Amino acid sequence: MTCPRPTVGIVGSGQLARMMIQAAISLDIRIVLLASDPHDAAAQVASNVIVGSPNDPKALAALTSQCDVITFDHELVNPDALAALETAGHRVWPSSSTMALAQNKRRQRQELSTAGFPTPAFENVECLGDLIAFGERRDWRVVVKASSGGYDGRGVWMVGDPDEAKAIWDGAETSGTVLVAEERLPLDLEFAVVLARRPSGEIAVYPPVETVQRDGICHELRVPANPGANLGVYAAEIAREIATRIGMVGIMAIEFFVSRNELYVNELAPRPHNSGHWTIEGAETSQFEQHLRAVLDWPLGNTDLVSEAIVTLNLIGKDAANDPRLRLAEGLGASHAHVHLYGKEARPGRKLGHVTVVDDSIEAAGARARAVRDALFSAPDR
Amino acid sequence: MTCPRPTVGIVGSGQLARMMIQAAISLDIRIVLLASDPHDAAAQVASNVIVGSPNDPKALAALTSQCDVITFDHELVNPDALAALETAGHRVWPSSSTMALAQNKRRQRQELSTAGFPTPAFENVECLGDLIAFGERRDWRVVVKASSGGYDGRGVWMVGDPDEAKAIWDGAETSGTVLVAEERLPLDLEFAVVLARRPSGEIAVYPPVETVQRDGICHELRVPANPGANLGVYAAEIAREIATRIGMVGIMAIEFFVSRNELYVNELAPRPHNSGHWTIEGAETSQFEQHLRAVLDWPLGNTDLVSEAIVTLNLIGKDAANDPRLRLAEGLGASHAHVHLYGKEARPGRKLGHVTVVDDSIEAAGARARAVRDALFSAPDR
Repeated sequence: MTCPRPTVGIVGSGQLARMMIQAAISLDIRIVLLASDPHDAAAQVASNVIVGSPNDPKALAALTSQCDVITFDHELVNPDALAALETAGHRVWPSSSTMALAQNKRRQRQELSTAGFPTPAFENVECLGDLIAFGERRDWRVVVKASSGGYDGRGVWMVGDPDEAKAIWDGAETSGTVLVAEERLPLDLEFAVVLARRPSGEIAVYPPVETVQRDGICHELRVPANPGANLGVYAAEIAREIATRIGMVGIMAIEFFVSRNELYVNELAPRPHNSGHWTIEGAETSQFEQHLRAVLDWPLGNTDLVSEAIVTLNLIGKDAANDPRLRLAEGLGASHAHVHLYGKEARPGRKLGHVTVVDDSIEAAGARARAVRDALFSAPDR
Repeated sequence: MTCPRPTVGIVGSGQLARMMIQAAISLDIRIVLLASDPHDAAAQVASNVIVGSPNDPKALAALTSQCDVITFDHELVNPDALAALETAGHRVWPSSSTMALAQNKRRQRQELSTAGFPTPAFENVECLGDLIAFGERRDWRVVVKASSGGYDGRGVWMVGDPDEAKAIWDGAETSGTVLVAEERLPLDLEFAVVLARRPSGEIAVYPPVETVQRDGICHELRVPANPGANLGVYAAEIAREIATRIGMVGIMAIEFFVSRNELYVNELAPRPHNSGHWTIEGAETSQFEQHLRAVLDWPLGNTDLVSEAIVTLNLIGKDAANDPRLRLAEGLGASHAHVHLYGKEARPGRKLGHVTVVDDSIEAAGARARAVRDALFSAPDR
């Protein structure tokens, strides 16, 4: 008798793949992981691991040969290689074209703007003169981003004058980095809308989540977010339209800015996302189960909150000596929270885990989550 | 640098081990599994598997050599082998003496009764004459149990007259089964108290759960149970006393009867238990995370309900053609529920998975859970 378990291949082996593996156990979905290192967060907990690079066609072929569908832990995969798999008849979700769009901030901005969605003013700067002219026009309220490869504050620079512009430009030229310049908006609020879409077209949208960022790294999630009722509804509509327009399949997170009561689309990520970690305990269906249901074209789950308020704090590394894994008993004893550790060595700025509390108010949930986070680090992080 | 991950060894590889593995991912606990078959429910999702028998001292030694503590998916392990490990300095939780007690229903009944806890009348029947005399005294309202090895209705027989007694006795004599006879009480309610105890003595008790049994197999869990407020409090006290008295470490489930408004202790299981499956989504801390916290002597988690009502339905196998794995999409589409499949071939009477719904009332939760269960089987199960 053939095994009725569907098999999903995951390219990449960070914490997102790790939490997908955890969710897959309940639905008896077999996971095969393509990991670049057998010690990676997800590889530690996977029962089927192929060690190889996502850009090695042989490794990708080995993965697809034993899977019903492949999906991703990150965007850094060559879209041409994915298109070749699609042509050969393999199911790849999100598709190669969605992955190509997600990798390229220039194209992403251009397509969203052309489609009429509200985006910050931007320009594809091709020389230092372009950047300085853009800066002058925007009173040097400018943020410059690498068009591809950035994450957690990397590949993003605040630029306040021509000297800073020259320094960024020279660095980018040396490394061959393509840049896009954007106006830096005064922010009332940053929030995200996480949704899932399946091939049949069904979409399930989670309530908006406030994302509290510091130095380009998300530190805290608060649900429900309060962008103002109209803006929340508008953002959900935009998210649905984008998902349908780009043929998204799987979980997608769209980050929004609210500036002077106006809504702007910041960027999108076509995969389970940090801004959806609260869903594991805070929503009826976790984003990780939802992603698996979507890529397998199964009915999507309910996205309602399970309580009034949810707060998730990321555990951001300080240095190697401050390792939450060594203080787990203290953390668990400090208050009641759902602690998630990703099995990663502590390094400054690295996401090592997260802590979620479900409670009756953002204040109560936040207080408990902070007590646990502080106890997980030797020194309180305020 | 040494890896700070604690390692827990699990003897046995059924669904309980499978759900422990799933819970261990969040807390970055490394699990090593001793599985008798590499295709077992837990072995499918384990990243570290030793294939061997729990009664092979070499296999047990291989397991303990790489673990900080070992624990169990089932009771069927030789307590002498465990005692030898303890003597050699290994941490074994629950201890060899707790395991010995759990394996032996005669000893269990005797110790609970001697300690003054309310139990049904019982007798260690040593010959057919003993059994017939016990039956006469109890007006043939009698249940006969194998002292060890029974589960899910196996090793339990209702005996209503001398002919039935003789048939059971002859079968037991042939197979060398030791029997205990008990009075069969008219049942108002069956419920269980699940608790965790850690070596330091801390105990955390979950609210009582009603267990709906048919043919000795648990079909449904309802939380909160309503044994009457006094009986619920009394049962929780009894459970605490038993756990302390036997030096329990880990999750323990104690099954209770209510008969004519009186409370009786039925039996205990020193491990995560079917009657605790509702805790995965229905309690602040799942029994599987709680068990791992307890055996590692970490602070225990909160046991509060997350909502007013929780219903869990077991998915009990009918025949090989009725495999919920083949109808998962239909099940997920039927209503919103948390579906757990154990990766087991469908066979009559086998627990293949469970479905949990958290809602505002037992009625509402039960209706949704039944819709999903019915859709997971070809023919409705009423």
